[in-house]
Parts: sequence; C-alpha cells; structure tokens
Amino acid sequence: MEKKFIADRFKAIQTSICVQIEKEDGQGVFQSDIWERSEGGGGDTKILTNGNVLEKAGVLFSEVFGPVSDKMKAAFDFNSGEFYATGVSIVMHPKNPFVPIIHMNIRYFEMGNSWWFGGGIDLTPIYIDEKEAQYFHQKLKEVCDKYDQQYYLRFKEWADNYFFLPHRNETRGIGGIFFDRLTTNNTGKTKEELFDFVISIGETFAPVYTQIMNTKKNVVYSDKNKEWQGIRRSRYVEFNLLYDKGTKFGLESDGRVESILMSMPPLAEWHYNYSPEKNSFEDNTLNLLIKNKAWI
Amino acid sequence: MEKKFIADRFKAIQTSICVQIEKEDGQGVFQSDIWERSEGGGGDTKILTNGNVLEKAGVLFSEVFGPVSDKMKAAFDFNSGEFYATGVSIVMHPKNPFVPIIHMNIRYFEMGNSWWFGGGIDLTPIYIDEKEAQYFHQKLKEVCDKYDQQYYLRFKEWADNYFFLPHRNETRGIGGIFFDRLTTNNTGKTKEELFDFVISIGETFAPVYTQIMNTKKNVVYSDKNKEWQGIRRSRYVEFNLLYDKGTKFGLESDGRVESILMSMPPLAEWHYNYSPEKNSFEDNTLNLLIKNKAWI
Repeated sequence: MEKKFIADRFKAIQTSICVQIEKEDGQGVFQSDIWERSEGGGGDTKILTNGNVLEKAGVLFSEVFGPVSDKMKAAFDFNSGEFYATGVSIVMHPKNPFVPIIHMNIRYFEMGNSWWFGGGIDLTPIYIDEKEAQYFHQKLKEVCDKYDQQYYLRFKEWADNYFFLPHRNETRGIGGIFFDRLTTNNTGKTKEELFDFVISIGETFAPVYTQIMNTKKNVVYSDKNKEWQGIRRSRYVEFNLLYDKGTKFGLESDGRVESILMSMPPLAEWHYNYSPEKNSFEDNTLNLLIKNKAWI
Repeated sequence: MEKKFIADRFKAIQTSICVQIEKEDGQGVFQSDIWERSEGGGGDTKILTNGNVLEKAGVLFSEVFGPVSDKMKAAFDFNSGEFYATGVSIVMHPKNPFVPIIHMNIRYFEMGNSWWFGGGIDLTPIYIDEKEAQYFHQKLKEVCDKYDQQYYLRFKEWADNYFFLPHRNETRGIGGIFFDRLTTNNTGKTKEELFDFVISIGETFAPVYTQIMNTKKNVVYSDKNKEWQGIRRSRYVEFNLLYDKGTKFGLESDGRVESILMSMPPLAEWHYNYSPEKNSFEDNTLNLLIKNKAWI
C-alpha cells in the first residue's frame, strides 16, 4: 500500500467530515488554509468559527516529510534519516456548555523501512451525561469489535492513561479510544487491515458527533454554565500544552503553529483555587473524571 | 549565612510587596493560603482578585525541601540527595489592557553542598509604550549597576533569551532581567553580596510597578483593546505551560498546583490565525516583541 493512497483517503475523510458537520451546525462554513512546510510537505487547515453550534472547530489534513531533526530525535526517540507523516486531526469547541468538546485523530507514519498507524477519538463534556457517555463508548466499541474483540478495552485503557492530567489527578474528559505505533508485529494484522480500522474510526466521527450535537445544541444554559465551560476549557489548554504528544511533535517538527494550536479553545478561564459546591452538577462531573470507569 | 535567614527575608519581602500593591490598587486585598508539602516544606500563597486595577495577582512565598525525585533528576539534571528551595514569585494580571502584566521571582537553592541564587523581573505590556519600557529598564539597570556594571546587559540578554516563544518567534514582552544559578564561582561575589543583590531586586518590584499602575490605570479602553489583551494573555499561557522552568519545576516536584498556576490569566483568547492590521497599535506592539532591543 502506497503512502500516496493512504494520504488520499485521509484527505477524502476530511472533506466528508466537513460536509456532515456543516450540515448539523446549520450556519458555520469551513474556511480552507492551504500551507506548505519548507522542509517538505504541507497541509490543508479547515476552520469553522462562529457557527450556530460550534464556536471554533478545526478539521486538519497534513502530509509532511523530510529529514528527522535533532529536536525530533530527542523528543520522540526517532532514528535519524527521513520521516513521512500524514493524518487528519480534529478539535471542536461548541458554544453551548452542554455540547461536549471532541477530538479525533488518525495518522500514518513512516521512518526508514518501518511504518505505523495511530489515532483515536475522545470526548470532553463540560457536564458529564452518563447516557451520552454510554452512547459514545458503545459506538466506539462497535467499530473496534469489527476488527478485533480486544481493541476496545485495550484502546479505551490507553485513552484513559493518555488523556490524563497528573497535576490535577483528573482525566481530560470521559476518554474514548487511543492507539499509537500499531504495526503488524504488535497486532498480528496486515497493513491493509490496520488501514481499514483507522479509516473506520475516521468514518465514525461525524455520525457520532452530529448525533451528540443534535441532542444537546438547544439545551438552555446560564452564565454559571458558561463560566464552568471556561474553567473546563482551561484544563483542555493545560493538557494540550503540557502533555499532548501531537502538539509537541508539531512544534518540535516546526509545523504550522496556527494549525497545531487550532486545538486551543476560543476562550478559557483560570479561577484561583476554584472548587464547585458539593453535589452540584459541576462537582458530579469532577468526580467522574477518573480512569478505568466502565461507561458501558 | 543560614537558609533560615534567607527564607525569613524573602517572607518579609512578600509582606512588604502586598502592602504596597494593595495601597496602589485601592480596593483589592490579598488573601492568604498557607499550605504544606507532604515531602517537606510549604508556603504562603497570597492572591488578590477583582481589585480596582488588578484582576488577578499572586505574591507567593515558598520554602520546600526533601529528597530529589527521579522526575526532578531527569528534568533538571540534578544530583540525587536532598534539595532545599525558597523564593518569592509574583505574577500580576491587570484589568486595564494598558497596564502591563508583570512577573518577578527571587529564589535560593541548595543541593548537597552547593547553593545558588536566581531571579528576575520582566514586563509584558499588551500595548508596548516605549517610554514606559525605557523607565522600566532604567530602574532595573540602576539596581544592577550598584552591584556590578556588567549585570544589567548580561541579565537583560538572559531575559531576552529566556522569555521567548520560539514557535511564535516573539518575546513574551519587553523582557527585563533574568539570572539563574549565580554562585561565587561564576560571579566572583560572596554569598552575602549575591543575597544583597537578590534582595534589592525584590525591593525594586513594588515601587517600579506601582508607578506603572498609577500612570496607566485610568487610561480609557475599548472592547477591541480587551480582545487584544485576551490574545496577548494566551501567549502568556503558552509560554508558561510550554517553556517556563519554574512551572515545570513546580509540577515535577509535586508542588501545589493552584500556587504554580496562579500565573495563568483570569481569561485568555485564542483566535485562529489572528493578524493585526498593518501599522495599528497592535501591529506596532508585535513588531517590538524582539530580542536584543536596547530599550535605554
């Protein structure tokens, strides 16, 4: 399987997702920024702002390649030589605090003679709704089960451990699935099978998230709900700048800064020593930001 | 010189700064949070919110000690054994976009038989005012010159290099002075002389910043000015979470999270691909966020 073929399918997924999301949003339109990377490759950053449901959303395609820099070697334990990376990355920040933030990524890497796939989807509700969490995890489990009965639990645990803020001792949200460096060696699957799995993840994103948008977009909210959204968004910022490997890889590989940091929320708030009232909805959400919770 | 003596003087500087800042603010009052660190030591985090001039300001004293953890070893190239650290850290976020953000830190470290001092002050205007920048640097130069004619230029260059966002290719603000690991070996000064220098830096903070607050606090501002403040504050967040060694040390040494992250602004905005109009005040500020500018 040629890398060109993989990149083309990823690009097609980007287009398809934008169409479906625009339709559900009902107002916002994705604007395209095509960019080039001086050391090799480039991308298409599609951003929607001030939609009806989405305040700021990015659906990015990129295909970058070139020599492995010293910074990349140090940060990622990469060998020297040439690398190739293509992927689709999504972050969506809705206006309404009852619509969760979502993130999706699918990626393919080559380094010398080796290759691997990575990716995942995870959901960050401002207010955790256990029914919604169950729906979300159920949908991810259904995709995983088509490929391997062990994938869902294995990749759900990986997401719990990855989307975690040690300094807050809390997960970023209700998790989802996360996987990295999948190869034939560590999965027993062919390259074609792994590619199909990753494509299925990409195709699952829009139907699942538009369903969630549709259910929650008209829920009435207060200033207090917006404030809590601002606080939860600041935790999103902390995760992405302190721990996210994609952000780190982007910055270390001299990627396009505005594309890498499209994941930042439009607005975030830090209140000193904020602690929600006991048994409030906010407190209930905090208490559910834990690893190893079986949502289904 | 005993470490207890150093810590006591640092604590006294914290108190004195809070009194002077409260007086200039005219409304806000610092609230004290005394905390303990389970592995050894603790601190006093003083926070003022919703003042007349200051939206959120922190003046922190801490004195922490204990065994060097594996995380600290890896992150700071520290030897194993016991460490001791005491310091005062300040970040102030004013409401009015014409009053600059300020940061100050003085610190003393011991590791086994070795000791060192570090510290600095730097200013982050939302709108750079060259006269104000000149005043600020002039005051820092005056303190430095009392101790060593080479300090100002040496530590100003250090600040330019330290308070820099490589991914944006811009400095955090107009800099100031920064120094770390000052010992008798690399300065030719006695411990007492270095201590006096660091104390002078601490004592310079309040008179200089209250003067700046006083000059700018009544300047009329617009929504556009507030938006630009939100954007500049997001760059402050990026610097602190991506690059600041104090933040990193705090998190890696299992420090008190709310004290470490008091530096975060109350509100920050990320606009995708924001670029100010050519020759606007915002554009002029961006063009001055460069290293090696001689402000005086």
